[in-house]
Amino acid sequence: MTISIAVDAMGGDVGVGVTVPAALAFLKLHPDTRLILVGQPQAIEAELKRHDQGLRERLSIHPASEVVGMDESPQLALKNKKDSSMRVAITLVKEGLAQACVSAGNTGALMATARFVLKTIPGIDRPAIAKLMPSVRAETCVLDLGANVDCTPEQMLQFGIMGATLMADAKGRANPRVGLLNIGSEDIKGNGAVKLAGELLRQSNLNFVGNVEGNDIYSGAVDVVVCDGFTGNVALKTSEGLAHMVTTFLREEFTRNWFTRVCALFALPVLARFRRRVDSRRYNGASLLGLRGIVVKSHGGTDSLGFRCALEQAREEALADVIQHITEQVAGQLKAAATEA
Amino acid sequence: MTISIAVDAMGGDVGVGVTVPAALAFLKLHPDTRLILVGQPQAIEAELKRHDQGLRERLSIHPASEVVGMDESPQLALKNKKDSSMRVAITLVKEGLAQACVSAGNTGALMATARFVLKTIPGIDRPAIAKLMPSVRAETCVLDLGANVDCTPEQMLQFGIMGATLMADAKGRANPRVGLLNIGSEDIKGNGAVKLAGELLRQSNLNFVGNVEGNDIYSGAVDVVVCDGFTGNVALKTSEGLAHMVTTFLREEFTRNWFTRVCALFALPVLARFRRRVDSRRYNGASLLGLRGIVVKSHGGTDSLGFRCALEQAREEALADVIQHITEQVAGQLKAAATEA
Repeated sequence: MTISIAVDAMGGDVGVGVTVPAALAFLKLHPDTRLILVGQPQAIEAELKRHDQGLRERLSIHPASEVVGMDESPQLALKNKKDSSMRVAITLVKEGLAQACVSAGNTGALMATARFVLKTIPGIDRPAIAKLMPSVRAETCVLDLGANVDCTPEQMLQFGIMGATLMADAKGRANPRVGLLNIGSEDIKGNGAVKLAGELLRQSNLNFVGNVEGNDIYSGAVDVVVCDGFTGNVALKTSEGLAHMVTTFLREEFTRNWFTRVCALFALPVLARFRRRVDSRRYNGASLLGLRGIVVKSHGGTDSLGFRCALEQAREEALADVIQHITEQVAGQLKAAATEA
Repeated sequence: MTISIAVDAMGGDVGVGVTVPAALAFLKLHPDTRLILVGQPQAIEAELKRHDQGLRERLSIHPASEVVGMDESPQLALKNKKDSSMRVAITLVKEGLAQACVSAGNTGALMATARFVLKTIPGIDRPAIAKLMPSVRAETCVLDLGANVDCTPEQMLQFGIMGATLMADAKGRANPRVGLLNIGSEDIKGNGAVKLAGELLRQSNLNFVGNVEGNDIYSGAVDVVVCDGFTGNVALKTSEGLAHMVTTFLREEFTRNWFTRVCALFALPVLARFRRRVDSRRYNGASLLGLRGIVVKSHGGTDSLGFRCALEQAREEALADVIQHITEQVAGQLKAAATEA
C-alpha cells in the first residue's frame, strides 16, 4: 500500500527552507510513500530547484495561497484563512487524498482547524497531544501535553486508551503498560480528578499499572504516561529547560580553556553518540490523537532532520492504521462501561 | 551570634552513618554554629567515636528514644511517637533552644509534626516545600514542591511572598523576580486557580513578572517560581528522572569499549567539573516555609555531603532571620489587602 502524507510546507519558523529538504530526505528513505507539499507553489518550486530532482515523481505540489502566522489567533486563523497551507493539508486527509498530515505551524491553530475539519472520534471528548520521550529503556508516550488544561477523569481514561493503542500499533508494544502521573504511588494520592481517573483506569481493560511519578517518564517503567494537559506541558517544558541547562554547562566546561578544549577533542566522538541518544530532533513529532485522521505537529523551530522525524511519526501511524484501532478501542470501552452500568 | 541547629540524627535511609559525619564536616566549616544531635545517645556516640574528636565542644547530644520509620504513616507517627528524634528536634526549635532543625526523615511525618508543634505563621494557610534548583544563571527557588496538592489562589500568593523573602534574605537577591508556573506567557492561560493566583500576584507588592513556563525553572529568568504542590512535585520528579537518564547515557557511552574508556580518561577532569555544577547533593535541603520556625528537609537517601548542604541551608535561613521577615511580609500584605478592600 502506498501512503500519501500531506505536508504543510509553509508552516514553522522557517517554512519551505526546512520542510522541502526534509521531505526529500524522507522520500529517499521510504520508497513506499508519497508526499503532497501544500503551500505557495512558487516558494516550494524555488526551494525544490535547489535540491536533487530524482524524487519528484513521488512528490506533488498542492496549492494553498495563505499562511497561518506562528502567533496568529487560532480562532481568527480558522475563520479567515480558509486557503491556508495548514487547513488545505488537513482537508486532504479529510477527503482521503492523504492518510496523514504534518505541520510545524502554530499549535493552537492546528488543533482548532483539525478539530473543525476532521472532528473527533466518537467517544472522545477532545483531542490530546501525545509525544514519545526517550527513556533509560524504550520510549515512553506521554499525553496530554497541553491541549486540555482542565481534564475530567473520563478524558484521562480516553488518553490512556489512545496512548496504549498508539504504542501497540505504531511501536509494536504488546499489552502496553499505562501509568497515571501522580505525586506518589499510593491510590489515595493526587487531586480529585486524578484520583477518579485512577479508578476509571483500574476498571478499564487497559494494562493499568497504577500511579507513576515524574521520574518514570524517563525510567521506562511504563509505555504510556497519562496526565492532564497542564501537568504534561509543565513536565515537557521543564525537561526542555533542564536539557538546555545541561547542554550549556557541558559546552561551557569543555570550552573553558585550552586544556579542556584538548580534552573535548578526545571526548568528541563519545559525546556525539551521547548527543544522538538525547537529540530532541529525533523525538520531534507530536500526535494530535482523538481526531478522525492523523495529524502530526512538528516543533516550529526544528530543522530538516527534526521535520523528517515528524514525517516518520506520521508514516508509522498511517501504516499501523492507528485511527481505526483507536475508534474500535474507544467503542469497545464505551460498550463495556455501558454493560457494567 | 551563635546559631544552634537541632539535627534529627536518626532520620534518613542511613541515619547516624550519614548525619554524624555531615555534622562534623559542617562544624569544621562554621565556627559560629553549634549542633545538637537528637536521637539515641548510644548510636550517636558510637558513630562519633569513629571520627575526629576535636569538634565535640560545639556539639551536644540530646536524647530521643524513638525513630520515625521512612514509610510510617504521618498521623500515626504524630500520635504515637512523642519521643522521636524528629519531634524532639522540632520541639527544640519551638522552645528556642535551637534556631533551626534539619531532618532526612519521612517528609509527611516531618510536615505533620512540624505543623503540630510549631504552628503556621499568621496569614499562612499551610506550609509549602521550597527548594533551590540550579539554573543557567543563578539558583531558582521553586515552591510548593508537594505539600499541598490542591492550592487556592491565596495560597499561591503566600508562596510568592515566602519564596521572595527567602531569596532576598538567605540569598541576597534584591527585589526578587517572582513568576507563576503556567503553560504560556499570556494572562489568559492556565486553569482557574492559576489565573486567579496571577491576579492576586499582580495586585501584590511583589516584583511579579507574570507567567513563566517549565523551562524557566532552569533559565534563571526569575528568582522564584510559584506553583501548586502537584505541579511542582511533577516538575521536580521529572527533572530527577531526566537527570538520571542523562547520567546513565553519559556513563554508558564512556564505558562502551576500550576506545571510549580512553576518551573518558581525557574527559574526566572536565566531566567532574560539570558533575559538580549539577550535583543534586549541593542543592539538597528543602525548606518547610510558613512555619513559626526553620525546618529543613534533607533527601532521605543523600550522603554526608548532601546532608551537610541541608545544614548549610538551615544555617543561612537562621542567620538571615527568615521567619521574622516572612511574618512581617505576610502581615504587611494582609494589611495592604484589607486597606484596599
